[in-house]
Amino acid sequence: MPSEFELIARYFTRGTSHTKLGVGDDGALIAPTPGQELVISTDLLVEGTHFLADTDPEALGWKTLAVNVSDLAAMGAQPRWALLAAVLPAPTPDWIGTFARGFFECANRYNIDLIGGDTTRGPRAFCVTILGEAPAGEALRRDGAQAGDSIWVSGWPGRAALGLAHLQGRTVLVEPQLGECLAALHRPQPRVALGLALRGVATAAIDVSDGLLADLGHILEQSARAARLQIPGLPAAGIERDCLLAGGDDYELLFTAPASRDSDIAALAGELRLPLTRIGHITAGPPGELVVCDDDGTVITPARRGYDHFMSPLEAGTVS
Amino acid sequence: MPSEFELIARYFTRGTSHTKLGVGDDGALIAPTPGQELVISTDLLVEGTHFLADTDPEALGWKTLAVNVSDLAAMGAQPRWALLAAVLPAPTPDWIGTFARGFFECANRYNIDLIGGDTTRGPRAFCVTILGEAPAGEALRRDGAQAGDSIWVSGWPGRAALGLAHLQGRTVLVEPQLGECLAALHRPQPRVALGLALRGVATAAIDVSDGLLADLGHILEQSARAARLQIPGLPAAGIERDCLLAGGDDYELLFTAPASRDSDIAALAGELRLPLTRIGHITAGPPGELVVCDDDGTVITPARRGYDHFMSPLEAGTVS
Repeated sequence: MPSEFELIARYFTRGTSHTKLGVGDDGALIAPTPGQELVISTDLLVEGTHFLADTDPEALGWKTLAVNVSDLAAMGAQPRWALLAAVLPAPTPDWIGTFARGFFECANRYNIDLIGGDTTRGPRAFCVTILGEAPAGEALRRDGAQAGDSIWVSGWPGRAALGLAHLQGRTVLVEPQLGECLAALHRPQPRVALGLALRGVATAAIDVSDGLLADLGHILEQSARAARLQIPGLPAAGIERDCLLAGGDDYELLFTAPASRDSDIAALAGELRLPLTRIGHITAGPPGELVVCDDDGTVITPARRGYDHFMSPLEAGTVS
Repeated sequence: MPSEFELIARYFTRGTSHTKLGVGDDGALIAPTPGQELVISTDLLVEGTHFLADTDPEALGWKTLAVNVSDLAAMGAQPRWALLAAVLPAPTPDWIGTFARGFFECANRYNIDLIGGDTTRGPRAFCVTILGEAPAGEALRRDGAQAGDSIWVSGWPGRAALGLAHLQGRTVLVEPQLGECLAALHRPQPRVALGLALRGVATAAIDVSDGLLADLGHILEQSARAARLQIPGLPAAGIERDCLLAGGDDYELLFTAPASRDSDIAALAGELRLPLTRIGHITAGPPGELVVCDDDGTVITPARRGYDHFMSPLEAGTVS
């Protein structure tokens, strides 16, 4: 079996394009761009909680980095550097090589240098720390939503949760929906270009990792505002509605912006070739209050709001 | 049981002193100091590999951060920010509260802001990412050792490994040595002040985490140099010698400096009240060659050079 040093040298040491000193010393060295602030996030992916044991390692490598890229997208930051810490059971080089291929595919896609890491033996888990840059004062945050702002979401939230439900035998999907949902689950596409375009436009932003309602709840709490949602085309009660409202893992962006920017955002959707859907607005109601309406305006009570990563999917998955 | 959000809010959210935006958004925001480079490192601690299941959680909290601080010390960087990702089995608030107390004791000692993290359920493991600063071009690296340089080590390497051997019943220590060795194992003191003082003095540096010989080996490989070691007072063959030469986990600094600075370094030991011992010199021998001599100059062959974190201590622990 390869040693820790051989593993790192063979699979996780690549050239860097914007790093002073990369993998191989006690620390990495980077020179921040003058005038930029650094945006930093760290995320864990643990087998059995965040991914299934039989997940394709290449897809897992992509997703391990992509979910972190998504955090920077939600902050309106340009991703630049990442570190990867991996806990691995006695691995086959094949598995690690395939994982690394997916990881670097994502790194190359977003021009991210891998600058450090750690490898140890144990139950499979990954911890990525990602660093990006945004001009001082321009990063997007969760705490700026204002009464009257429109609430928007990108893409197709709910697909990843539906794909997981199919894999777990809780629903049966057919093509083309099956392929779309499995792609959303295994190959999430972080909305970096959207995050960058929303600097100076959005008043608050978050990526949908815990569930649409739960993540909107975070914006409402931190902005001390309320919201009324009326989602165009909301499916009738059932697993599709539940996945849309409470399924996490899509890594779409949920954001608020002044209603005066509605047409700019609609135009942005065209430029980015990415659906941007207005799903409601911020109100002056009691801080944290979230009213959800059916397509016809009837107030509904969702089965659940989202997902707590401290519980496993099976424990949390009481889908109505 | 508390949710992920309650856990983070209750135990891991403290005020920050030099951070634009800390725990609670998709990412943290920091403003790097102009003219400084950022030094970044990430480390995993996994139960059963890096610590025993019955380790006191307060000591573990201290050590989880301290081993990362040590990486920055070895780079001559000033520690500034840290992120903590924790995998925890169904936890008692007591355990987490005690762990957090130890973690923040270390953070306060070194003036480090905790700026982010993640919490999930699984087999206990921690991943810390630490960031520090050093003036551009002044960070210490592993690749600058030159033939003729003196080789130095701080403190008392080997103590932590001896303490572990005692706990595992492989040796029996008595006071005061027992207390000193257990303190080295449970409360390592990262040599930050020494690292800062070595900027512009040391030609290469590393912290002793894998073992004295193994870590010197990393300097030799990356500097493409050889070394001859003659350690004053090297114990006779046996567990004390093995722990000194190959026991990791002490987090002392091992460094090289021109022989012309020998007296400066001796004076530094007095200022810092920290033993600094000259243990050999860099030679023009074949790159990577490491000759180890007994006290009287006889060449010896150590039982092992160090510790591979990809194997568990029990697998690696074939102590002669």
